[in-house]
Amino acid sequence: MNFEIVHEDRYSAGRLGLLSTAHGEIETPVFMPVGTAGAVKGITPQQLKEIGSVLILANTYHLLLRPGVDVVDQLGGLHRFMAWDGPILTDSGGFQIFSLSPLTRIDDDGVEFASHVDGTKIYLDAETAMRIQNRLGADIITCLDQCTAYPCKDSELKKAVERTIRWAKRAREAHLHNEQSLFAIVQGGVNPELRTYCAEELVKLGFDGYAIGGLSVGEGHDNMIKTVCHTAQKLPKDRPRYLMGVGMPGDIIAAVKAGIDMFDCVLPTRNGRNAYAFTENGPVRLRNSALINEAGPIEAACDCYCCRNFSRGTIRHFFNVGEMLGPMLVSLHNLRFFQRLMATIRQKLKHNEFAEWAKTVDY
Amino acid sequence: MNFEIVHEDRYSAGRLGLLSTAHGEIETPVFMPVGTAGAVKGITPQQLKEIGSVLILANTYHLLLRPGVDVVDQLGGLHRFMAWDGPILTDSGGFQIFSLSPLTRIDDDGVEFASHVDGTKIYLDAETAMRIQNRLGADIITCLDQCTAYPCKDSELKKAVERTIRWAKRAREAHLHNEQSLFAIVQGGVNPELRTYCAEELVKLGFDGYAIGGLSVGEGHDNMIKTVCHTAQKLPKDRPRYLMGVGMPGDIIAAVKAGIDMFDCVLPTRNGRNAYAFTENGPVRLRNSALINEAGPIEAACDCYCCRNFSRGTIRHFFNVGEMLGPMLVSLHNLRFFQRLMATIRQKLKHNEFAEWAKTVDY
Repeated sequence: MNFEIVHEDRYSAGRLGLLSTAHGEIETPVFMPVGTAGAVKGITPQQLKEIGSVLILANTYHLLLRPGVDVVDQLGGLHRFMAWDGPILTDSGGFQIFSLSPLTRIDDDGVEFASHVDGTKIYLDAETAMRIQNRLGADIITCLDQCTAYPCKDSELKKAVERTIRWAKRAREAHLHNEQSLFAIVQGGVNPELRTYCAEELVKLGFDGYAIGGLSVGEGHDNMIKTVCHTAQKLPKDRPRYLMGVGMPGDIIAAVKAGIDMFDCVLPTRNGRNAYAFTENGPVRLRNSALINEAGPIEAACDCYCCRNFSRGTIRHFFNVGEMLGPMLVSLHNLRFFQRLMATIRQKLKHNEFAEWAKTVDY
Repeated sequence: MNFEIVHEDRYSAGRLGLLSTAHGEIETPVFMPVGTAGAVKGITPQQLKEIGSVLILANTYHLLLRPGVDVVDQLGGLHRFMAWDGPILTDSGGFQIFSLSPLTRIDDDGVEFASHVDGTKIYLDAETAMRIQNRLGADIITCLDQCTAYPCKDSELKKAVERTIRWAKRAREAHLHNEQSLFAIVQGGVNPELRTYCAEELVKLGFDGYAIGGLSVGEGHDNMIKTVCHTAQKLPKDRPRYLMGVGMPGDIIAAVKAGIDMFDCVLPTRNGRNAYAFTENGPVRLRNSALINEAGPIEAACDCYCCRNFSRGTIRHFFNVGEMLGPMLVSLHNLRFFQRLMATIRQKLKHNEFAEWAKTVDY
């Protein structure tokens, strides 16, 4: 992997970058649709590509549980499995292990948890997590981390940070496939000292990129952005910075300003399935009976297939009668909305208009 | 509407036709995907077009209940509403009224029924059914008919046939929009005398086309085909013949042999949602755990997006974890399978190879 800074914004820490992988180049700042268990819910890979998605994320935890790494391997690896020939990033599984699964044991070596699907006990340590992601074969992989809840006592946070650093060191040593880039994950909750410590230790080890994890877990926008600003400054300029699981358009804009290059979030598809459409004029809720005879699209300025072809009235009807096309179309629109947002952000950065523009954005 | 017989098969009653409508030409025999309440379940209109669909069906009954004719009208009519710029056929509602709804009253003038959604009482007579379909604005519309269950006493069948004829006469008089073609529906169960009587009376009235209704309701393949063969012979050669709600590939092939030009059926999408894929080698059931690591497509000979990109193993996984993409992809494959079947049928008819080929088909 190669990461090149193409342009630095004159009025913020934001930057334009170009990330090269074996499966293609990625302009940053970039938003990754989330293909949880090998599929972005309700969207075909062809549609994903048509709306401008370049890099997508798949969840190691979900793939590990079902269908399992052996099966993905037998089916030709993650790219073939998902029918996605562009770049893919796999997360570490840390977030899901610590939020979805009953933990059965955690120590400095690793973590044992019970599958949320069938209770099967699974043990993961730094090396196992690497081997799994090596075999899945994503272009960018991540070190196993310990993700903490919010709020969290400093003593607990500290332990999690120490483990995250220890596991990152071991992951780095166990990482075999040089065609895969390895990102470490900075933990530390909203504690600036711990964030600094974690970032500095990870940077000493040296990774292809750095993720900021453990945010968007209930700390709120202001705490999140304060932590992102603080942490981003501790990370090397010449490496991509990835804010995990974020977020709302306002979060993304504020984080780009702080120098973040990569984002992933389930909001476009999860909200889409729940009839919530993102627009520049704020959300449109497509179950609202006031839309019953609205002949206009969700968003007049949007160029997505949904907005070019379907009225708000029709989509409201689809949700009202339970037609799958409702969730499919609003998810598609939302993903396109996020890709258009990122394209605008890149355009504004390029012309040093980002900071001014960001002030005017209110969605 | 104009219907032209392009070729008559030398060895069967099958024929190739060209049906012209304001929204495009249709090569027959044709299969119509069913867009129940304005959407073919899980498939975008763009995908429908890509897999070779030309004419689609929408259910008057479902649209009448939700969102209602006024709303479809306010949203620009059925083509705009469904985002389908090709030809559309609306059925009469008869089948759904007599199969889904608790009837509250039926007499020679019309039928009152309770909506299966919320119990609202709705009254339909021949004229109302026309006015509704005139306002929806499909290219081909159908007269209100009384559809009988199977089995059904001859005295009941006779009454239903008389009403169907009376209502067709009134529909013809009430039909205002000359750009819409009007089809009458032949009823009569599996009683050949009643089928003859119904067909002859309707033909005397004169319609743009003739549908055969009241089949595929439990009478079985042999009774169905016997009735279709018998009835098709009583219908004018120079008008399209439409077998409603049929069916399995074997039913379609046998009916083409009897001179049927048009078909609709929910099987490709309904079975698709239930992990049942049609192939030339028989059905593939995609929940089957034997497929867990099968790297090949559902059907190697298929050119659909699903088969060109996804393995059986991945699709099995999607059904296993409840990913929407499973139902979406198998529905898409099945619809393409039906369109490929119709293309093969037309090709075989063209070269007078249809009857020979039909003998070899075993799916």
